[in-house]
Amino acid sequence: MLRDTAFLLVVAILLAPPEHAMAAGEAPMISIAIHGGAGVITRGSMTRDEEEAYRKDLGRALDAGYDVLESGGSSLDAVTAAVRILEDSPLFNAGRGAVFSHEGINELDASIMDGRTLEAGAVAGVTHIRNPIDLARLVMERSQHVLLAGEGAEEFALEQGMELVPQNYFFTERRWQQLEKARTGDRYSAAEIGYYGTVGAVALDRQGNLAAATSTGGMTNKRWGRIGDSPIIGAGTYADNDSCAISATGSGEFFIRTVAAHEISALMKYRGLALGEAAREVVQGRLKRIGGDGGVIAVDRAGNVALEFNTEGMFRGARDSKGRREIGIY
Amino acid sequence: MLRDTAFLLVVAILLAPPEHAMAAGEAPMISIAIHGGAGVITRGSMTRDEEEAYRKDLGRALDAGYDVLESGGSSLDAVTAAVRILEDSPLFNAGRGAVFSHEGINELDASIMDGRTLEAGAVAGVTHIRNPIDLARLVMERSQHVLLAGEGAEEFALEQGMELVPQNYFFTERRWQQLEKARTGDRYSAAEIGYYGTVGAVALDRQGNLAAATSTGGMTNKRWGRIGDSPIIGAGTYADNDSCAISATGSGEFFIRTVAAHEISALMKYRGLALGEAAREVVQGRLKRIGGDGGVIAVDRAGNVALEFNTEGMFRGARDSKGRREIGIY
Repeated sequence: MLRDTAFLLVVAILLAPPEHAMAAGEAPMISIAIHGGAGVITRGSMTRDEEEAYRKDLGRALDAGYDVLESGGSSLDAVTAAVRILEDSPLFNAGRGAVFSHEGINELDASIMDGRTLEAGAVAGVTHIRNPIDLARLVMERSQHVLLAGEGAEEFALEQGMELVPQNYFFTERRWQQLEKARTGDRYSAAEIGYYGTVGAVALDRQGNLAAATSTGGMTNKRWGRIGDSPIIGAGTYADNDSCAISATGSGEFFIRTVAAHEISALMKYRGLALGEAAREVVQGRLKRIGGDGGVIAVDRAGNVALEFNTEGMFRGARDSKGRREIGIY
Repeated sequence: MLRDTAFLLVVAILLAPPEHAMAAGEAPMISIAIHGGAGVITRGSMTRDEEEAYRKDLGRALDAGYDVLESGGSSLDAVTAAVRILEDSPLFNAGRGAVFSHEGINELDASIMDGRTLEAGAVAGVTHIRNPIDLARLVMERSQHVLLAGEGAEEFALEQGMELVPQNYFFTERRWQQLEKARTGDRYSAAEIGYYGTVGAVALDRQGNLAAATSTGGMTNKRWGRIGDSPIIGAGTYADNDSCAISATGSGEFFIRTVAAHEISALMKYRGLALGEAAREVVQGRLKRIGGDGGVIAVDRAGNVALEFNTEGMFRGARDSKGRREIGIY
């Protein structure tokens, strides 16, 4: 009897479709996740109206990316569409709502990666680019390079026909107040919403291709041309069809030192961890052990999503073709 | 009889010391490796005098680093000492001998990492720093950041009391001629010695700590503020006492896309490969498949060294406390 049960169990396991298999005629899974930064985000720290505004813009970005996937578009186009909306919102620390550096200017970083080809593009320290994610994508598609920085990156943008915007496009009163507070050395306030915030998106398209994108204004009051993890392939952004696509947000230096995004990919490929286990291991284990705060969003080829953070909150959203649609903050 | 042999074999295996164990009273293994760039370096391409000059400076750097280790110094001090000598030599594409960018200036990148703490420092696009590796180390030790770029990085250098040098310190006739040639679009010449060159060192000290350092002038005729893999932790440089220390040289964009240095570390940690296997897998496999040229030097905690390249040559050297001392080019 026990032997029969064991036999039937083995047969059932052998016959079970793999996690990502689909029934005949069913469309392949599509999936997207986004984030809008992680940090000390507690229920008391926002009014209901503020919370509603965040949820609305997160939802718009999530749905814009999902619509691209649903109409058969590529994961690259989906993550670009989602990140562009978050960059255009004044609420998030990227594009329009970027934080101010010590010198009172907005220095923007972004990166994008194609999991199918391992091609990637990134920009660091640009100050006149409305949508840094678009420029990162141009670097990927129209240069032989991966990472362009500063004035040189803007020269490339001009050569590609991109219009520059004046620096005052990025002025928001709230970010200016955060800089003033940070300048007076109030360290706790520095950890409040948006100090570390970054936006990002990861997606799986119908062709089974993964992509990841990240964009940020960096740290309030940052100095000396500091570059964080967002434009660093392997640290803040990574995508490889053989494992997963990841976008990170948090205290960038720690994500660089642990090569956080690539570490998650490696744990899946070489230690056989599932996506959620790999993300947890890095965010709650390796990063935390050296003092790193923040989180990641990730998606694998089966359309599984991980939304992992070790801070009190992370602005986030996930949607897939199985009907899941969620927006979260705390 | 067979059973007895098998039994003795098992006992012998169980009693055998692990690879890195030492006999009682013997000093722990120390080991260092350096590189001075990889590329189309064939026997016909250099005169005997030129070859002798390269060998001499590689030997000086190797021995300077080894002397630090032998006198009980740290692997961090050893790799810094070795890289500083290669930066001061006009022969290598780093520091003094850096190649020229499209605009006719020398933009230098460097990074360093401590395998014991996973602390790291890096600079990108500096133009007035005699020894960028020293500045990368200051970033690691005296800032909360990992990567500083451009003028901001030089502001930090000044605040730390480092003297800047005028740009003409980096003028060498040979590099200027290479720029002229590259500007005329002779693509083959672009692949000659020094176009991609970079210098680096990895070491294991008596305390069992690993460190890695890399420094470069980037690509001849580079434009748009291009940053390669050398200042990118995980791509051109990585060190982790749990696996190995790595410094890379080659077509940087491919090393960024494969996160080459961290990939070698991950293959050791998570797939259980030996150092040499992991380096070979990345340099001859993963990198080559997407079109990446170059090589890596690496050392593990047992003092094993890997010198792996997929180009015709790589300037390199290795020395350890077992009496090995070798300099190689082809």
